Amino acid sequence: MTMTHSAIWQALQTHRQTLSALHLRDLFAQDPQRFSRYSLQAGPLFLDYSKNLITDETLSLLVSLAQQRGLPKAVEAMFSGEKINRSEQRAVLHTALRNRSTQAVFVDNRDVMPDIRRVLAQMDQFSTAVRSGQWRGYSGKPIEDVVNIGIGGSDLGPAMVCAALAADCDGPRLHFVSNVDGAHLWSVLKNLNPEQTLFIVASKTFTTQETLLNAHSARHWFLQQAREEKFIARHFVALSTNRAGVVAFGIDPANMFEFWDWVGGRYSLWSAIGLPIALAVGMQRFESLLDGAYAMDQHFREAPLHANMPVLLGLLGVWYINFFQAQTQVILPYDQGLHRFVSYIQQLSMESTGKSVTNAGQPVDYATGSIVWGSPGTNGQHAYFQLLHQGTLLIPADFIAPIRPRHPFTAHHPVLLANFLAQTEALMTGKTAAQARAELQQQGHTPERIEALLPHKCFAGNRPSNTLLFDTLDPYTLGALIALYEHKTLVQSLIWDINAFDQWGVELGKQLARGIEKELLEAQWTLPHDASTQGLIQWIRARQS
Amino acid sequence: MTMTHSAIWQALQTHRQTLSALHLRDLFAQDPQRFSRYSLQAGPLFLDYSKNLITDETLSLLVSLAQQRGLPKAVEAMFSGEKINRSEQRAVLHTALRNRSTQAVFVDNRDVMPDIRRVLAQMDQFSTAVRSGQWRGYSGKPIEDVVNIGIGGSDLGPAMVCAALAADCDGPRLHFVSNVDGAHLWSVLKNLNPEQTLFIVASKTFTTQETLLNAHSARHWFLQQAREEKFIARHFVALSTNRAGVVAFGIDPANMFEFWDWVGGRYSLWSAIGLPIALAVGMQRFESLLDGAYAMDQHFREAPLHANMPVLLGLLGVWYINFFQAQTQVILPYDQGLHRFVSYIQQLSMESTGKSVTNAGQPVDYATGSIVWGSPGTNGQHAYFQLLHQGTLLIPADFIAPIRPRHPFTAHHPVLLANFLAQTEALMTGKTAAQARAELQQQGHTPERIEALLPHKCFAGNRPSNTLLFDTLDPYTLGALIALYEHKTLVQSLIWDINAFDQWGVELGKQLARGIEKELLEAQWTLPHDASTQGLIQWIRARQS
Repeated sequence: MTMTHSAIWQALQTHRQTLSALHLRDLFAQDPQRFSRYSLQAGPLFLDYSKNLITDETLSLLVSLAQQRGLPKAVEAMFSGEKINRSEQRAVLHTALRNRSTQAVFVDNRDVMPDIRRVLAQMDQFSTAVRSGQWRGYSGKPIEDVVNIGIGGSDLGPAMVCAALAADCDGPRLHFVSNVDGAHLWSVLKNLNPEQTLFIVASKTFTTQETLLNAHSARHWFLQQAREEKFIARHFVALSTNRAGVVAFGIDPANMFEFWDWVGGRYSLWSAIGLPIALAVGMQRFESLLDGAYAMDQHFREAPLHANMPVLLGLLGVWYINFFQAQTQVILPYDQGLHRFVSYIQQLSMESTGKSVTNAGQPVDYATGSIVWGSPGTNGQHAYFQLLHQGTLLIPADFIAPIRPRHPFTAHHPVLLANFLAQTEALMTGKTAAQARAELQQQGHTPERIEALLPHKCFAGNRPSNTLLFDTLDPYTLGALIALYEHKTLVQSLIWDINAFDQWGVELGKQLARGIEKELLEAQWTLPHDASTQGLIQWIRARQS
Repeated sequence: MTMTHSAIWQALQTHRQTLSALHLRDLFAQDPQRFSRYSLQAGPLFLDYSKNLITDETLSLLVSLAQQRGLPKAVEAMFSGEKINRSEQRAVLHTALRNRSTQAVFVDNRDVMPDIRRVLAQMDQFSTAVRSGQWRGYSGKPIEDVVNIGIGGSDLGPAMVCAALAADCDGPRLHFVSNVDGAHLWSVLKNLNPEQTLFIVASKTFTTQETLLNAHSARHWFLQQAREEKFIARHFVALSTNRAGVVAFGIDPANMFEFWDWVGGRYSLWSAIGLPIALAVGMQRFESLLDGAYAMDQHFREAPLHANMPVLLGLLGVWYINFFQAQTQVILPYDQGLHRFVSYIQQLSMESTGKSVTNAGQPVDYATGSIVWGSPGTNGQHAYFQLLHQGTLLIPADFIAPIRPRHPFTAHHPVLLANFLAQTEALMTGKTAAQARAELQQQGHTPERIEALLPHKCFAGNRPSNTLLFDTLDPYTLGALIALYEHKTLVQSLIWDINAFDQWGVELGKQLARGIEKELLEAQWTLPHDASTQGLIQWIRARQS
């Protein structure tokens, strides 16, 4: 029997119908305890989920669904190193990377913790040398700029964390180059001095096309001034497992930072992929990031399902995606430092849950995954919030904010927080025709003008949101916040019985690109194409020459 | 009779059902001319729309829908200055801002062109003075950095254009501050020298809360070093219509650049709001941007509906939103310079179409608008493309690329373009089980492993996309590209009979924020709130003190 035919799924569907008649305003009016009952603290994070389209029955049904899908056992399977990434036959152990206890974690009967601690020590040593100025460039000057060359998981995580912790960045300036469009590398290099620049080449296999092309262009740019190839080892390091490739590039294997096949790209910022973070903010703060994630891991592993923050967020996601046909999830951090956070969660969530077959290979008959989008407030309020408030779509929203800022313009923060809170209130309560009419009358409009304007001034409300608050965005809090979304993603994938850890869907495009590249460069056909792709190639060829 | 009950709408619904059985692969196989029939050139832009889920019948029905909704007449009404923004009783004349002909444009019997030309001349004079170094800061040094302070339309347009035209930026460095989070302003100011910094305060009313707070903090920061208030006039200019407010701030009214009530915020980069662009790339290139938009305006106004690029894009949008329940539209510029383009189109589209009532105030019974998201390729391929290829959602995609790059790393561009083309091909053709099986066999897997992997390696394909190509991203081309999306948005709003030019949905949140701000600062209740909002305010208050 498929999930959608199960009694619990049917009960959720029936229940969802009964909710159609209810407005969140009424749910709040009926229950003065709604806020205290539907909020919780986990580590440094406080979650208010009372502004969701749920009742006790909803939560009880969703928790039952999680139980029936074997959630607790599956979570333990991940933490204990079982090969839950079945299609790739791999363990999934980003949690071991931030295991701050003395407990061993076994993969194939081997404790992975000693290796993890060895690489952490290597990162500590290297980042300290660079940050202290002890590490010198080829002309004897200290490093002032670090360029991380990587894409996907080798870019988004470290870039996001370095932006979020801007107030803690007291090391060299960090730059991130990912896109194979040479304009990206150029926009960074044109302002840098090779004598004081360090490059990190981040590619597990050391074969990622974009990363290697950018790395070789950077190498060429560096050698134009440095001249001697032996200097490469002072200015390039690698985050990789391909020793031969790294050495061939000219990098000293002592400066290759390793990670393992149980570290997925989009879960890798806790590994050697986090080296740029350690360089920017120092190893102590990087370890504080690990501590925060570990705190969330403990909560996720130990809290009962109905009081488990990642479980609740995951189940709410399932509720909207599968029972309200929500195709998107908007994330709204009211913190400018989190301007890369949405891109990070976008990859985490969409690459993990963008699947159409179950672990066993059966096609699903339910939606999996949704599109994650958003940007730091208050900017969105002057851009797309119009659609959130008065559009025709249901868009579940996560609002995120720190109570204390980390910058000197203190007068700004109450305004930011007031807007933050007001938006969740406005989305939920809306504005009735009676309220809108009273306002228009007070403004002195004519009766005709009031009737014409009224429908445009009403807000249906009843739009759900979560509110996440914390004291301030320090490394510890950020670690917990990221781990929260990681586990939320896992919860959803377990309900849907899909593999959150593979990404076969990225292969076909890569495969086709190899042929087309030849066709563009050599103007010879290597593959049969549809008329559109062939026509476009011809169109480009004709204008290239 | 509502639109959804009309014969044409019903015909589209029936037709959509017949298409369910078809695969794009088959449509291409059946028709060797599909590419040449479903592609067209408009100004500098080439559009291939053959990889859409359409046939001749689809297009003919959609064009009929446009006719029946009175599209051509409504378009002329906009160009000729009629007050088509009915709820605000205003004309909509961003097209007049780039009217490069000698023809007059009348609003209330007054030609607006002389005013437009006067402000263009003022922008020319000022930007030339700053760029040439003739304009000096208070200590006698030329301007090296310009900070634009604005939000929404007063930020997204100029910021996007300056990023896109990076290769043309030969003036002072441009910075953009929008978010009221003080971290945004701080991240910019901490690296600047007040002696050589010019601030542009962009707010039509000169009362926008975020912009004025940022402007006053910038003013304070400036005066900490400059000391004398008379120096403000050398370092602050305004894009506004509020002369009294501007003068009170300390700005010389000669440096107030005006625009008019028929310029909507999200359509304003062609007006004085474009001053940062003129400073960054020079007035000549800014005028070339206008020229490109004007070329698209002419095409939009004159081309028959079935060969009209904005009309086709708009109708395809309606097709997916209303007949395939697509809630989103992904935009994928394969050009790093367009990294702000998606945010720009997001506002343009979502603030314009996020409405639930018709112009006459009737509730709609169809979806309006969709969520615009995306990022420059090839980054997305390593992030969320997994969901595009193998997820359960239909996501119409616009792929955009220049044939020639504007940077020195020329080896990168064929790789970028090959990926660009390969993705549209992969999304459309997919990979069948037979193809996947053959590949797995060739790779030497065991029969058991092949059966286990096979479902994960298949791609359904049949996922629609548009491809937009152009020679290179110069100002003229960019102008045409932006105007294309503006008119696409208008077309959709005309089909849906909604007002693309108001934004009443942003008011409620602002209203509520004013009260909450007092509650946070003075710890007194001014408003009744739901238990959630009240609980959150108390939670913050308790931790602030």
